[in-house]
Amino acid sequence: MSSSYKDLKQECYEANMQLDALKLVIYTFGNVSAVDRARGVFAIKPSGVPYDILKPEDIVILDFDNNIIEGTMRPSSDTKTHAYLYKHWEDIGGIAHTHATYSVAWAQSQRDIPIFGTTHADHLTADIPCAPPMADDLIQGNYEHNTGIQILDCFKDKGLSYKEVEMVLLGNHGPFTWGKNAAKAVYNSKVLEAVAEMAYLTLQINPAAPRLKDSLIKKHYDRKHGKDSYYGQS
Amino acid sequence: MSSSYKDLKQECYEANMQLDALKLVIYTFGNVSAVDRARGVFAIKPSGVPYDILKPEDIVILDFDNNIIEGTMRPSSDTKTHAYLYKHWEDIGGIAHTHATYSVAWAQSQRDIPIFGTTHADHLTADIPCAPPMADDLIQGNYEHNTGIQILDCFKDKGLSYKEVEMVLLGNHGPFTWGKNAAKAVYNSKVLEAVAEMAYLTLQINPAAPRLKDSLIKKHYDRKHGKDSYYGQS
Amino acid sequence: MSSSYKDLKQECYEANMQLDALKLVIYTFGNVSAVDRARGVFAIKPSGVPYDILKPEDIVILDFDNNIIEGTMRPSSDTKTHAYLYKHWEDIGGIAHTHATYSVAWAQSQRDIPIFGTTHADHLTADIPCAPPMADDLIQGNYEHNTGIQILDCFKDKGLSYKEVEMVLLGNHGPFTWGKNAAKAVYNSKVLEAVAEMAYLTLQINPAAPRLKDSLIKKHYDRKHGKDSYYGQS
Amino acid sequence: MSSSYKDLKQECYEANMQLDALKLVIYTFGNVSAVDRARGVFAIKPSGVPYDILKPEDIVILDFDNNIIEGTMRPSSDTKTHAYLYKHWEDIGGIAHTHATYSVAWAQSQRDIPIFGTTHADHLTADIPCAPPMADDLIQGNYEHNTGIQILDCFKDKGLSYKEVEMVLLGNHGPFTWGKNAAKAVYNSKVLEAVAEMAYLTLQINPAAPRLKDSLIKKHYDRKHGKDSYYGQS
Repeated sequence: MSSSYKDLKQECYEANMQLDALKLVIYTFGNVSAVDRARGVFAIKPSGVPYDILKPEDIVILDFDNNIIEGTMRPSSDTKTHAYLYKHWEDIGGIAHTHATYSVAWAQSQRDIPIFGTTHADHLTADIPCAPPMADDLIQGNYEHNTGIQILDCFKDKGLSYKEVEMVLLGNHGPFTWGKNAAKAVYNSKVLEAVAEMAYLTLQINPAAPRLKDSLIKKHYDRKHGKDSYYGQS
Repeated sequence: MSSSYKDLKQECYEANMQLDALKLVIYTFGNVSAVDRARGVFAIKPSGVPYDILKPEDIVILDFDNNIIEGTMRPSSDTKTHAYLYKHWEDIGGIAHTHATYSVAWAQSQRDIPIFGTTHADHLTADIPCAPPMADDLIQGNYEHNTGIQILDCFKDKGLSYKEVEMVLLGNHGPFTWGKNAAKAVYNSKVLEAVAEMAYLTLQINPAAPRLKDSLIKKHYDRKHGKDSYYGQS
Repeated sequence: MSSSYKDLKQECYEANMQLDALKLVIYTFGNVSAVDRARGVFAIKPSGVPYDILKPEDIVILDFDNNIIEGTMRPSSDTKTHAYLYKHWEDIGGIAHTHATYSVAWAQSQRDIPIFGTTHADHLTADIPCAPPMADDLIQGNYEHNTGIQILDCFKDKGLSYKEVEMVLLGNHGPFTWGKNAAKAVYNSKVLEAVAEMAYLTLQINPAAPRLKDSLIKKHYDRKHGKDSYYGQS
Repeated sequence: MSSSYKDLKQECYEANMQLDALKLVIYTFGNVSAVDRARGVFAIKPSGVPYDILKPEDIVILDFDNNIIEGTMRPSSDTKTHAYLYKHWEDIGGIAHTHATYSVAWAQSQRDIPIFGTTHADHLTADIPCAPPMADDLIQGNYEHNTGIQILDCFKDKGLSYKEVEMVLLGNHGPFTWGKNAAKAVYNSKVLEAVAEMAYLTLQINPAAPRLKDSLIKKHYDRKHGKDSYYGQS
């Protein structure tokens, strides 16, 4: 039972359990992974295992070409999407995927989430992008790998940086989020769900609600993320 | 107090308690049954007994013609619907009925729930059917028995298989769900409620939201249920 | 500290605590009373006392003319409405008032809640009535007493029986519910809130949703309340 | 570790923890302050510290010109807004700021919350004001200080008294509330969120819902706050 990936598995396990604690998933409708860049591997939840019986040693270790390095269980069915993102986005340390209610509703609506307020601008300066569904041949092919391609194409088309926009909606599916580590990826899933709910309600109250003005977007993002940021304890 | 149906009663009891734990019911607004095919009987919740005082020995055992085989309490008022489904759908092992909020809202709207996303397609490939209310003479007659007929007629009219579509909305009433056992039936009630909420929100955000494209329906259903499925631990 | 109304106070106390446990109130936004018909008195929550410090001995005892019979605290500001209802509706044993979210939303909309489904018909056969706001002089006068008159007038105008319809919305204010005892009054507050939420969602999904057909209203009400009822344990 | 501000820090700490307990915040999306008028200082939450690790001794003490009097941590990024309000509104003892869901949705809609019912009128007689976003140069300048100016300008423009209206929405941002002490400020945040949700639902059910009539506004406000008030224990 001794493993040289014990810490990585523990990080991944704890982040997965947070999905459940934060009410972002029911049953097994989500997964989180954590990466070890130095060793070129990532840890991910096994497929279809309920959170109340999940254990740290169940976590599966793979390389970025989807070879299982350690673990006896089948990894998440979305593993290839995680691997593709780790391979191409070299600065991310963790990825989360959920079917959280409001995030999914926007994904099913095939709409970007407009930046309506400072809660949104505290985290990113763009609308939250919704990638369109893939072409049929890509779906019928290497689906989860192609999902990774779809996300990167969406960012390229919209001119977005994955370092500044740490979340995406997959049209008709749901959200993927990422960050410097697995805990930050889960944090971003929770923030996205909160922003998605607020944006939904805003549109119901005022269908003509305007986007946040540029000066407020810049102010709020910079006070948390800019070089002269003054939020939090440095 | 010794009973030859102890295990069946326990399965039924635990599934009923799950309805409450999953917040699918308030008070006594729901019931679950579990079948023993070999002996030709099913176990069901007694009528009107609150979950916080329900005990395994309160569960009632009946045959498929609604004769009480064991038990001193009156069975659920919906018992004849359960019996009818068990008698005609020979591969189901459990049935659940609730008045869960979003499921009921769609039933009261008399609308099928459109398949808007992969959460839905992970479980079934069709819109979730809503059976129309019955004719007046059937309501005034053997109502709960006729409810079973209504469900089967709905599946016949829409060309659906109960093995692939494990849920239905009764127009103006609420959901019935089923599965290989009572726990799976309850699982399907929870999934239906989640899908019903997501579909509701989707329509509010984008009234013209399109159905999920066929290739994605097939991909997601097959990766969980097809012969080459790769979801979960086999 | 000895009191001849100890049991009545205890019943009233427990019913008030249920309002909180069922999430029907925040802070002190609600009150429940319980009657002792033989002695011509009722017990009610003291005004403005938070649930987490409320004690059975804080409950105030009054007669139907609002004279305090026992208790050192000021009774609920809505006391005169309770007294008026007890005096004129001789078969009720408990009354509850809340500011529960969906019930208040319908009251603020000044609309009756249409009977859309069987959850509603399991409890009453009519739309849930919304009494219009009172005339200005009645508001400026003996307001809480006049609120009682307003409720009775509403039932007379609509031809409703308080024995069959155990709930009302006060336009722009919120719900009052009643029943054979205080616990049943609280039960009716919870049912009303659930029905109010379902009706709200139904209208959002299908603004043209039809009322439940008469045969289903009669069937569901009678199987729970008719002379040949077969719901629950007799 | 001995501090002459121990009681003030404790009051501030407990009020901040209430934000979390009342589900008005996720993560660190909120802050509460408490004032000591005699000493000309206020206590406020440190910036970006999660509630589950916050301790009373982390609370920062400042004067009304934003000089830190005691504390080693960086105060909330919204501190200057608090200081401005304390300096100009001499009768308030506590201030709370959240990103609570329904309050934010109205703020993002840039709409005042209409007074639709008695829940609202029990607390204030005016629509809940929504201050417009600031001019660009004020945002780019001393933003949090200018936010205080913006709030006071809004009250002046609308002819409101901060003693009677203890809450405001900042357009595209979220709510600020205040009161005689920090606990009352938090109470007002919770009441605002409840009223915001009810008003939202009311508009969905009846887009033409009328404002509460003046006689009812006056009656409900006066029975709680007028010189002849009869709500609560005096």
